[in-house]
Amino acid sequence: MNMRTMRDFLRDDLRLQLDFSRSDQNRGIAPPPVQKPVREGQIRIPLPGDPATAFAGRVDLVRALAERKSHRAWRDEPLRPEELGFLLWAVQGVRRKGGPASVFRTVPSAGCRHALETYVLVNNCSSLEQGVYRYLPLDHALVLESVASAEFTARQHEAVLMQTFVTRAPVVLVWATIPYRMEWRYMEAAHRVIALDAGHACQNLYLAVQAVGCGTCAVAAFHQQALDELLGVDGEDEFALYLAPVGKV
Amino acid sequence: MNMRTMRDFLRDDLRLQLDFSRSDQNRGIAPPPVQKPVREGQIRIPLPGDPATAFAGRVDLVRALAERKSHRAWRDEPLRPEELGFLLWAVQGVRRKGGPASVFRTVPSAGCRHALETYVLVNNCSSLEQGVYRYLPLDHALVLESVASAEFTARQHEAVLMQTFVTRAPVVLVWATIPYRMEWRYMEAAHRVIALDAGHACQNLYLAVQAVGCGTCAVAAFHQQALDELLGVDGEDEFALYLAPVGKV
Repeated sequence: MNMRTMRDFLRDDLRLQLDFSRSDQNRGIAPPPVQKPVREGQIRIPLPGDPATAFAGRVDLVRALAERKSHRAWRDEPLRPEELGFLLWAVQGVRRKGGPASVFRTVPSAGCRHALETYVLVNNCSSLEQGVYRYLPLDHALVLESVASAEFTARQHEAVLMQTFVTRAPVVLVWATIPYRMEWRYMEAAHRVIALDAGHACQNLYLAVQAVGCGTCAVAAFHQQALDELLGVDGEDEFALYLAPVGKV
Repeated sequence: MNMRTMRDFLRDDLRLQLDFSRSDQNRGIAPPPVQKPVREGQIRIPLPGDPATAFAGRVDLVRALAERKSHRAWRDEPLRPEELGFLLWAVQGVRRKGGPASVFRTVPSAGCRHALETYVLVNNCSSLEQGVYRYLPLDHALVLESVASAEFTARQHEAVLMQTFVTRAPVVLVWATIPYRMEWRYMEAAHRVIALDAGHACQNLYLAVQAVGCGTCAVAAFHQQALDELLGVDGEDEFALYLAPVGKV
């Protein structure tokens, strides 16, 4: 790794070198699912209310833009499931189903590939047990990935490199990527756009928190392996990319 | 380049391998300017109105999230400079000046580094000559980079790989990065977060266009060299990263 190589990653030179006729999409391979399937026996928890209307009329868009800021301290108050559901809808929610391979969301994605999965570390959310959950955009529901162990806080600390403002938050949203979803169409040009997509999602969070009296702070620095293990993802075909603690402010 | 290497770019493993005590920031080197300086003789054009209030009260945040969509067709109507100014403020505008090395904006940036510059290809904006402009967030002004030549449309076409919906737009926002601004603090861990930051900016555009009767569509595919040449950047220390046409819908 050197600086030149790292800069090259951000550039779009690669596009002209790739033969997209060799992509899995163009070779007729079926698209991967738009949402990671729920495993047999996993508990699904529907999220209450209609997220597209529940908190409407509370914040003007331009005001939300003007007051966008990072928060790193939280009131000692749980989030409510309808608030969490609204925030998850804001970052990855489905606006319209296009077909088996495409869903249109509150955020765009290159080629409508949406290679992100959104996990939630729940520390303090009323009626939800502490643990790791995943958002199911197609169902507006959560799926329980793992109940918190006695080491839950310690593992979060390690995973976020001891940034205590993260682990003190009632909930922490973590975006992981399943890169194949994007590679299926874009091959080696997939990865730069996955990072762009994650920024889109997180900006919606910065704005949406203002409708439910919350704040957030994007965090791109973490212990990759520890965070992947905490989420229960393999670190190869799915791995953590970006995260944001959320709490009442 | 192989898929594994490309995936690694998105991962944060690098962080644990870097010795941040060797960063230019920690070696006491002065921070680079938060805004690319204007060259002697360049024309500055102040943008009219207060962008934080001019279009307030028009769109509810939650409604804007629900109606986020990509547009690729435009009405044959110019943008007004106050509309363009509002959109530029939404994507990179300054909310508060922190100090010589930091400004707080409508979008977050890792370490408050804000390694983006926003260019505008102006095809049809009332009172602005066709050409390439750059946004000056500290001044809420434009600076004219180059007046359109006879080949302006043809060069745009080449730069965006013949995506005609882009060149038909009244204005095209192009985010370039000056990566050193981020490398100064984060060394080889800078580049992944620059891409995340660009996603943040573009998501604000998707929402903000709704307050001025416009639409947009993010574009990550372009001809790197042609676009860099059109912007007038060197392609090494500053290069294009992401773009979005904007027009009335």
